[in-house]
Amino acid sequence: MTHSNVGGYENLRQELRRGCLTLAVLAQLRTEHYGYALRKALADQGLEIEEQTLYPLLRRLENQGLLASQWREEERRNKRFYHLSHEGNRLLARLLEEWSSINSALVQILDRGVVTEESPQ
Amino acid sequence: MTHSNVGGYENLRQELRRGCLTLAVLAQLRTEHYGYALRKALADQGLEIEEQTLYPLLRRLENQGLLASQWREEERRNKRFYHLSHEGNRLLARLLEEWSSINSALVQILDRGVVTEESPQ
Repeated sequence: MTHSNVGGYENLRQELRRGCLTLAVLAQLRTEHYGYALRKALADQGLEIEEQTLYPLLRRLENQGLLASQWREEERRNKRFYHLSHEGNRLLARLLEEWSSINSALVQILDRGVVTEESPQ
Repeated sequence: MTHSNVGGYENLRQELRRGCLTLAVLAQLRTEHYGYALRKALADQGLEIEEQTLYPLLRRLENQGLLASQWREEERRNKRFYHLSHEGNRLLARLLEEWSSINSALVQILDRGVVTEESPQ
């Protein structure tokens, strides 16, 4: 019955996740992580993110000056460690305000429930 | 200082809002609204949305079978009234679960705060 809408749901779900994932990545990188450890930390909180989504996102955020990174050896392997920059920290604070205000709005809309003004079908 | 990042913030903010706006529109349309009244209702809850964003979104959601609409005269003007379809209602429920799980994850990440493992700068 929802056959035609499997893609519809998946698109909307991705759209909903996209912005929040960026927020989660920034928030998680208040503590330094390398790529794999970051993915694992997010997955442990219930936010699965594909490598092919995460790595371009990290590069983009670093290019924007929101993250900084450095290569370091750990367990005999060179790993690139990312952390939030000073500017990223400020931007995170602003995004969190936005997130909180969007959430309040959604909660209000949902609490209001359905006021039915049934129209003739 | 953040000069280079004004666009960065605005993009991230839009990305964060995009998916949530769709959710808000679907939730608000559990009650029938015509376009202008819907925009006003969302703005009253703190979710401003441009006409040029809202109207294409409504058409897209209707094409996906998530909304239904009908033209009706009100105050001597023909208006197109939108409401959530049965399928839209089911999809809304699934999206709300997703939203709630994303939010829990974000709250956990934020609560955890910063575990500083300062690296030499």
